[in-house]
Amino acid sequence: MRRSELCERLGIQVPIVGFTPSEHVAAAISKAGGLGVLGAVRYNDPGELATALEWMDANVGGAAYGVDVVMPAKVPTEGAPVDLERMIPAPHRDFVTETLLKLGVPPLPDDTPAGDGVRGWLHSVARSHVEVALKHPARLIANALGSPPADIIELAHEKGMLVAALAGKAEHAISHVDRGVDIVVAQGYEAGGHTGEIASMVLVPEIVDAVGDRVPVLAAGGIGSGRQIAAALALGASGVWMGSCWLTTAEYQMGPLQSAVQEALLAAGSSDTVRSRIYTGKPARLLKNRWTEAWAQTDAPSPLPMPLQNILVAEAHQRLMRAGDPSVVPMPVGQIVGRMNEVRPVAEVMARLVAEFEEAMSRLDNMR
Amino acid sequence: MRRSELCERLGIQVPIVGFTPSEHVAAAISKAGGLGVLGAVRYNDPGELATALEWMDANVGGAAYGVDVVMPAKVPTEGAPVDLERMIPAPHRDFVTETLLKLGVPPLPDDTPAGDGVRGWLHSVARSHVEVALKHPARLIANALGSPPADIIELAHEKGMLVAALAGKAEHAISHVDRGVDIVVAQGYEAGGHTGEIASMVLVPEIVDAVGDRVPVLAAGGIGSGRQIAAALALGASGVWMGSCWLTTAEYQMGPLQSAVQEALLAAGSSDTVRSRIYTGKPARLLKNRWTEAWAQTDAPSPLPMPLQNILVAEAHQRLMRAGDPSVVPMPVGQIVGRMNEVRPVAEVMARLVAEFEEAMSRLDNMR
Repeated sequence: MRRSELCERLGIQVPIVGFTPSEHVAAAISKAGGLGVLGAVRYNDPGELATALEWMDANVGGAAYGVDVVMPAKVPTEGAPVDLERMIPAPHRDFVTETLLKLGVPPLPDDTPAGDGVRGWLHSVARSHVEVALKHPARLIANALGSPPADIIELAHEKGMLVAALAGKAEHAISHVDRGVDIVVAQGYEAGGHTGEIASMVLVPEIVDAVGDRVPVLAAGGIGSGRQIAAALALGASGVWMGSCWLTTAEYQMGPLQSAVQEALLAAGSSDTVRSRIYTGKPARLLKNRWTEAWAQTDAPSPLPMPLQNILVAEAHQRLMRAGDPSVVPMPVGQIVGRMNEVRPVAEVMARLVAEFEEAMSRLDNMR
Repeated sequence: MRRSELCERLGIQVPIVGFTPSEHVAAAISKAGGLGVLGAVRYNDPGELATALEWMDANVGGAAYGVDVVMPAKVPTEGAPVDLERMIPAPHRDFVTETLLKLGVPPLPDDTPAGDGVRGWLHSVARSHVEVALKHPARLIANALGSPPADIIELAHEKGMLVAALAGKAEHAISHVDRGVDIVVAQGYEAGGHTGEIASMVLVPEIVDAVGDRVPVLAAGGIGSGRQIAAALALGASGVWMGSCWLTTAEYQMGPLQSAVQEALLAAGSSDTVRSRIYTGKPARLLKNRWTEAWAQTDAPSPLPMPLQNILVAEAHQRLMRAGDPSVVPMPVGQIVGRMNEVRPVAEVMARLVAEFEEAMSRLDNMR
């Protein structure tokens, strides 16, 4: 796998960008020659993100890394937590309470700190993440929800950072590049987390045709093997953006409740995901289980818009994770979960990706 | 593009299989070096299919071709037309009547022959299609709905024909091959017509891993350029199965009402399709328009199971096609419709596919 122009610009060895909420996984990806991108959304306190980035600075051995924030292009209606809480209809709260009861999910222990859920979806919190990232030698700042605001793109560029943004449609990609984004991530329907409806096979060449003469395009969605990397490059991408695959790496240890999540991921097939608005209010692909199925019933309420839905389910997410039950974990993951069948160290995953890519290329050469 | 083992077995020059309801398009694909596969479902009278195949025999210049039938793996409840009509609930009929009125779709002229709609979805009709196909030198018989019955596979093999079946999941592919199917078509979410939920990027390698050591796998769904063919081969497919792209070829002339359909297809983007049960009762990807949107309203009834839904909408489909209004045509098509922006002869489409494939391969070589 040749070191491409994209690799030169990002300061990496192979055109594999790995998104992960774990600083340990991100560091391992970077050390293995890719670009580890740390997802900031789970850090409610910017200080925690700063600590994680300090740890990365000390542990990546000088390798390049990135930070991913979730910043809506438009500033949404936002107020103090108490105001947002008031905007949630009572029937929605009742549905969540009753569903958790039906699913046998225990309440939080009395000594649980009063959590206000993941607040990284709020514009103000995402902005504080960016401010932290700008103080670190991150090579890339990525935004999972459209173009970052103009001043942030400018600040990043002043620091010599590249700015990436996810796009599920060609028109969004064009808008990103017009606003100064340096790298577009073409995120297909099959991807985990927030996704559009156009599958990677169609979306990647469409976005490459729309903006590929101005910026590199990374293919995201459905990538978990060297064959899929070869396919992404065949479609015109300059590299790949992978998220799901790292969730079953040995370095991904998010605490004592991790085992239920990994058990669920290792057992799931490619049909065991669903695209739904229940996680954040915007369509996102999740592991299909008893929790997502409850929301798919005809008597279930429609999910609320972002950021209200996330606030509605914040405590439920905590309870579902603590339940230790693989059949209810709230977990964004792509259709590639069907290929995630064993726990392996990041370095081994990376080595296999590169070896499989070479194999696929040799096979293609013989078909030419 | 090298002549592969698949090409040898099918007697073709390039591993491109083209599905089309038009014998003119099918013949042109075969003459251009691919395998034209004639869709039989629209022929209510087996005699009409026989006439089309006789025309093809006289016009393909000895090139190989195939026939596609729609035969459910299990024989469904089926009776005389009058019995089936009785199984359709009145509110469904009322919804169709009212929707056509709202959309401004005129009734059929008085002199329209009493059509009973497309009956190729009925098992007995599909079987008669197979019997006709077996009398012609078709090289391939494909079934769009699972494995054909065992006796049909046996008859086809006796005639030296290969049997292909579509699969949207790896487990279906395994079942097909266990029953004697010779070629599996891995049909991804982005495909037109009947589709599953797994996108091609994930589905193709999954099916190749499941059955690729026993039979060749064709990638279907999202294929409309040489880059996408290269991607499909990178994923492990032996060739591609393309359907949508031929709908905007110069040879595709299905009568005086064609212009509204072509106008709609040429204008549509990759976001302008929807996967819905309204066409046949099973999930199928269609052009999104005022007709599909009416069925997506919360007050619309749930589509009926196959074959009832098709009978319910049979006359509506005739009326929608005759209306000459691009905003209501009932039309199965894949997300690749966004790339179908001009009317070109089949031979030119084929030549471009091959040239683009070579370009993609050269580009890949430089990235290796």
